[in-house]
Amino acid sequence: MGVGASLARAAQVRPRHPATICGDRTRTWGEVGDRVSRIAGALKAMGVGDGDRVAMLGLNNDRYFELFLATPHAGGVVVPFNSRWSEAELADGIADSEPLILAADDVFLPMARRLAAGRPGLKLLAIGEERPGDIPHHEDLIAADPIPDTGRTGDDLYGIFYTGGTTGRSKGVMLSHRNVLRGANIAHCEGYYRDDATYLVAAPFFHASGSWPMIGITASAGTAVILPGFDAGAALAAIERYRCTESLLVPTMVQMLIEHPNFATTDMSSFTTIIYGASPITEALLDRALVALPHARFIQAYGMTELSPQCVALPHECLSGDYRARGVHRAGGRACYGVEMRIVDEDDNEVPRGQVGEICARGESVMLGYWRRPEETAAALRGGWMHTGDGGRMDDEGFVYVVDRVKDMIVSGGENVYSIEVESALSTHAAVRSCVVIGVPHEKWIEQVHAIVILHDGAAACEADLIAHVRARLADYKAPRSVEFRTAPFPLSPANKILKREIRAPYWAGRASSIC
Amino acid sequence: MGVGASLARAAQVRPRHPATICGDRTRTWGEVGDRVSRIAGALKAMGVGDGDRVAMLGLNNDRYFELFLATPHAGGVVVPFNSRWSEAELADGIADSEPLILAADDVFLPMARRLAAGRPGLKLLAIGEERPGDIPHHEDLIAADPIPDTGRTGDDLYGIFYTGGTTGRSKGVMLSHRNVLRGANIAHCEGYYRDDATYLVAAPFFHASGSWPMIGITASAGTAVILPGFDAGAALAAIERYRCTESLLVPTMVQMLIEHPNFATTDMSSFTTIIYGASPITEALLDRALVALPHARFIQAYGMTELSPQCVALPHECLSGDYRARGVHRAGGRACYGVEMRIVDEDDNEVPRGQVGEICARGESVMLGYWRRPEETAAALRGGWMHTGDGGRMDDEGFVYVVDRVKDMIVSGGENVYSIEVESALSTHAAVRSCVVIGVPHEKWIEQVHAIVILHDGAAACEADLIAHVRARLADYKAPRSVEFRTAPFPLSPANKILKREIRAPYWAGRASSIC
Repeated sequence: MGVGASLARAAQVRPRHPATICGDRTRTWGEVGDRVSRIAGALKAMGVGDGDRVAMLGLNNDRYFELFLATPHAGGVVVPFNSRWSEAELADGIADSEPLILAADDVFLPMARRLAAGRPGLKLLAIGEERPGDIPHHEDLIAADPIPDTGRTGDDLYGIFYTGGTTGRSKGVMLSHRNVLRGANIAHCEGYYRDDATYLVAAPFFHASGSWPMIGITASAGTAVILPGFDAGAALAAIERYRCTESLLVPTMVQMLIEHPNFATTDMSSFTTIIYGASPITEALLDRALVALPHARFIQAYGMTELSPQCVALPHECLSGDYRARGVHRAGGRACYGVEMRIVDEDDNEVPRGQVGEICARGESVMLGYWRRPEETAAALRGGWMHTGDGGRMDDEGFVYVVDRVKDMIVSGGENVYSIEVESALSTHAAVRSCVVIGVPHEKWIEQVHAIVILHDGAAACEADLIAHVRARLADYKAPRSVEFRTAPFPLSPANKILKREIRAPYWAGRASSIC
Repeated sequence: MGVGASLARAAQVRPRHPATICGDRTRTWGEVGDRVSRIAGALKAMGVGDGDRVAMLGLNNDRYFELFLATPHAGGVVVPFNSRWSEAELADGIADSEPLILAADDVFLPMARRLAAGRPGLKLLAIGEERPGDIPHHEDLIAADPIPDTGRTGDDLYGIFYTGGTTGRSKGVMLSHRNVLRGANIAHCEGYYRDDATYLVAAPFFHASGSWPMIGITASAGTAVILPGFDAGAALAAIERYRCTESLLVPTMVQMLIEHPNFATTDMSSFTTIIYGASPITEALLDRALVALPHARFIQAYGMTELSPQCVALPHECLSGDYRARGVHRAGGRACYGVEMRIVDEDDNEVPRGQVGEICARGESVMLGYWRRPEETAAALRGGWMHTGDGGRMDDEGFVYVVDRVKDMIVSGGENVYSIEVESALSTHAAVRSCVVIGVPHEKWIEQVHAIVILHDGAAACEADLIAHVRARLADYKAPRSVEFRTAPFPLSPANKILKREIRAPYWAGRASSIC
């Protein structure tokens, strides 16, 4: 079964149900099914055959969504490019993936033209509102005759998804039709992407948190409400207007939503499922969110693109009661339906419960490999398990605690300090609105635990207060030795993760660091 | 991912949660995980290697459940035998599947001994309460050292499931690990076999309605309450005692449950999901069930063993309101999550919506084929679609109406009359408790529509009343020409389907019939 079969089913069982809502455009599954078969016909006429790549560059819209379905229908492979990439990074991406077509919206078309200039084989496709005239526009493609789905399925390559790019050069994650469908199904089993979903897509399509709603909502024949990108005010307006039921929000997005001036006057009663993840949440923010949205279920998703993307989930009931008392709310979650998890040592032996090792996952949602990187593929997938590169431990009920996310660990005086633990403790101080804990250079300890804090408007706290607050909660060596106050927001990645690397960089300028 | 991975996950994430409840024995997932790895070790020591068959013969119990997991763990293939088969049929089943081991409970062990007598290579295993001494008992196997799962997965054969056997010689349906897991997942997506399920297994393990709860409840790490077989009084007692949440019940079981003298005094408040299927339900029984269990959601499942087993589902909301007014409650349902459906003509071309043709399904839940029957496999799976042999039509919302279940059609005077339609109309008469409509020989029309009716205790109705009742609801040619009253219950198959073939037989004795 391929992604095309999911669309065929959606068009069959819910022909008049809204599939995509984008601005003032609503299209039903019947319409999307028909349009996709025509767009695929046009793509085929443009030369797209089995395994040819169709790259996409733009903010989210319903045409981009349709290309995610029409490309495999024509036999092609989707390649969503990171819209925050520089022109040089995009050129790298094109050289690496060698697409036959580059689709771009109004914002990115000028850059796409420059990128295509030196590549005669690369055809442009406009997917914005403007109709340039000299290159085909998405709506022109609808005039083509429909073609039957080419029947790509199972282990056939569905897409190449470039990883974050915040550390080193991006790798293209190859995901098969089975991989992405299993990933969508995992989410369904964990309580989202269901047929009663009106899903707010606020994350960028090129990121796992934005790509999977397209697959998942198609598989369940739900409805996707598409925002061009995340904006708290627009998200609130869309939730109220379309009675959105759910969305995946990274912690900074949760915070922006509940701190927005319109939050109090927005009807949020339909918004009952919030999936949070992609970066750690602090306890203070979690508690504020639980109070602000008392009718919502909060489900934490942990994973990575290579895992399509979720591997463990923390259900809502783990955030309170006995689970909370035992600290289970700090876990990433436990193995999702259809996924196996284990923690291994450096020799790939499973470690005893409670010991820290590398988090590994196995299942049909695990990637085929990295595009044109056989050695890195072999290393990541050794023994049939995806090695996440994240450190963690598992308790005796299978809860996985991520202790070393993207190497976010400080080694101070020989002791390992996990930033998220210190940030969580610091965030419970009433004056703290947001905080980041990093390692900064220290002559004796190599690294020193350093906190950077944004206080609530009108709130006051001094360095000694905050250090004492953490000392009362954690081992002494974990408490910050220094605290810095700032008012400007932290820099964010395209996926709204706090860019710790950027925050760390100035402290380490001119020095060798094992972390940056 | 194989069935073994599902068990590994269940034991990891819910080690202390009840897995199986059987009489007074409760075993947790931690215990089942440990026991299965030991039983598998013992099976391996008994010679079970990759692809070797382990046959099972008995009423449902928790050991039988464990063999469904331990057999693949050791590399073997499960073969659950129909416990209603005659000794000759069982001998046929053994000759066909050539098992290495035959597991039998106390009731069936004497017959198993006779069957094994002429087969020196066939080893017996006792799975009942008695310990015979001369052959190994299931509980002895626990002493073996645990072995790791052999890692059978994907397209590897999981089991051979013999079809009904009510028409002609049984065929062995070969299902892979992926097939059975996808089947379990389809059910999960349709609302049952979830992690909050306490599932009452009242259907026999050898039948699809009894086999899949074992896979589905393992995949979600829910709880299975196992009855030896269906008994309405025992089912009611178990629902109340264990707070069962759901069960798949065939229509006759639904009727026996709500008509049982203890029904009114049983606490049914936990029992909120009823999956019904395996044979058509009459409207009158459906309405009685909806009234009797007002808090329950009723989900109709239609499918067959070859489809692992469900392909379409009719959600609860289709039983009332606008759907009901449009007659959608009479549909089998629409394509399940992950399944494609279509209706084809004799040349395998899709027919226009509304036209009757053969119901076909495609997806990862479709069988590998029939055991050692390559020609029948090729015919059933031609073009990559499973041809169900059932006639049906699809409306413009994708609802599939089964009009010709297992050839249950009467051809009278050149007109096709579908028994279920007449039975549904007849069943709405207040005096009718149960009814069967069949074709009986007629000199002029070839077949004549004939009804056999069981009235409610104390109720009265004459032949003319009942014929008039149907005439008021259906085309004249569909109304019975004759009605016969009886008081004895209709004969039932092991899966509690009414055995129409047996009812029809005496009318056709000595005649050629296109139906029997």
